[in-house]
Amino acid sequence: MTDLRITVVERAQLAMMLEVCAFPKPGNVDRCHDYPDTVLEHFLASAILARPALVEAESGKGRIGEIIKHAVRDTNSHGGGNTHFGAFILLIPLVYGKDIPGALAAIARTDSSDAIAFYKAFAMTSVRMPASDELDVHDPHALTLIRQRDMTLMDIMQHSAASDMVAREWVNGFALSRRGADLLKELGPGRRSIARMFLTLLATEPDTFVIKKHGVAVANETMLAAREVLDGRRSVEELDEDCIRRGINPGSIADIVIAAIFIALGEGWSWEF
Amino acid sequence: MTDLRITVVERAQLAMMLEVCAFPKPGNVDRCHDYPDTVLEHFLASAILARPALVEAESGKGRIGEIIKHAVRDTNSHGGGNTHFGAFILLIPLVYGKDIPGALAAIARTDSSDAIAFYKAFAMTSVRMPASDELDVHDPHALTLIRQRDMTLMDIMQHSAASDMVAREWVNGFALSRRGADLLKELGPGRRSIARMFLTLLATEPDTFVIKKHGVAVANETMLAAREVLDGRRSVEELDEDCIRRGINPGSIADIVIAAIFIALGEGWSWEF
Repeated sequence: MTDLRITVVERAQLAMMLEVCAFPKPGNVDRCHDYPDTVLEHFLASAILARPALVEAESGKGRIGEIIKHAVRDTNSHGGGNTHFGAFILLIPLVYGKDIPGALAAIARTDSSDAIAFYKAFAMTSVRMPASDELDVHDPHALTLIRQRDMTLMDIMQHSAASDMVAREWVNGFALSRRGADLLKELGPGRRSIARMFLTLLATEPDTFVIKKHGVAVANETMLAAREVLDGRRSVEELDEDCIRRGINPGSIADIVIAAIFIALGEGWSWEF
Repeated sequence: MTDLRITVVERAQLAMMLEVCAFPKPGNVDRCHDYPDTVLEHFLASAILARPALVEAESGKGRIGEIIKHAVRDTNSHGGGNTHFGAFILLIPLVYGKDIPGALAAIARTDSSDAIAFYKAFAMTSVRMPASDELDVHDPHALTLIRQRDMTLMDIMQHSAASDMVAREWVNGFALSRRGADLLKELGPGRRSIARMFLTLLATEPDTFVIKKHGVAVANETMLAAREVLDGRRSVEELDEDCIRRGINPGSIADIVIAAIFIALGEGWSWEF
């Protein structure tokens, strides 16, 4: 059963809060680790400051691309850089549509104005795209291309799906978010299930944020290392230290974990024990 | 300068978030410590869920006692027990009035309906009053007494000021909250100043929550121990461990620290570095 005392917006904010607190999450900011320029409090501030955009999404009116832009704008008022851009790409449609079918209906209705607003949001972040991409967000020509081809935001996500697992969620029906939510329910109530779910996804999917930053080999190596942790052949603390030292932060899986927590909370899973 | 990009409500939520994350805070829940039944995430969930009551306070309309009751009701939807009751006693008037003079004007206008709403909020928490108190919140006769004597919420705080440092803030013009805010500004920007400010207040004031739970001797001993930490004669980690082992959690000073962060953020102090 969903906890009826909390709203859909609060559920999204709790998901953002619970994800960043969960530990140990190899390589990512968590209760035990900061990065020099991005710390636990940046993520938590972002969860608080995202509220107006989430309320806008909850209304089920307005345009998805514009609302994602508002979320990025409102959470950019802290100095920790991009914290939740990928999470907003998943949460805004989920809050808008209330569940996965609703989110899919909402994203099917995106048009080129959503794509343009999204590109403007993207430009406000420090998230990188593959250098060869003709739709590079830092290339002013990209907006012209989007208009010329009348590309919707869904088209953009299809374009990015091969190299970006967050975009892929739009295309495959939030498959990994769904799997994460199911894992939480299998693992049982309690916040500890979140770190375990994170590790399980990390052990089965090469993180595309890691691929963009370090290449495919490092992402695969990280995936195999997470598998070794699950199999008891390696300690999670050691993998965590290794990832942090090398700056390997699986940020896209973290985004999907947030969506998974949001879905699971809506289906009665409880973070309390 | 105040950060104009965040609202008064968000400032209050950020203050609640920053206080609980700050570490090490001897004896209290922080980034590094949970209690068995109340954990970091309970405090952070409360900071998220307090939003509607804070928005109600921001409007500057409605009754302070009723708004405190709403804050307690909305944040009781998690199972971590009372997390922010004392903080709401300070934050709701501060958000209502926007600053200390505004808060004092607001609390001067409380009447017996505020007192009764406050008692109903109190009864929802597990916070204890001195057993000898004729206005004991668990005694149904207390509400009759409040009505008979036409006591305002300010009267209740005056009644409690001797034994409760949070109530005392209403009576003494938020003196300790003011001192905490000044300390933050002296210590300089950055979240680390919060734990230092907490320790400085702990070294100068016996925490009345500790007095109610463990007696005056233990509160004084904790105050002196905090002084030893400030003087470099004892490590903060050792004091923290000692407090946690003995269940000494200076919760009232934590409430005042939240008010202090709220005030300091409003006067341009930044938690970022």
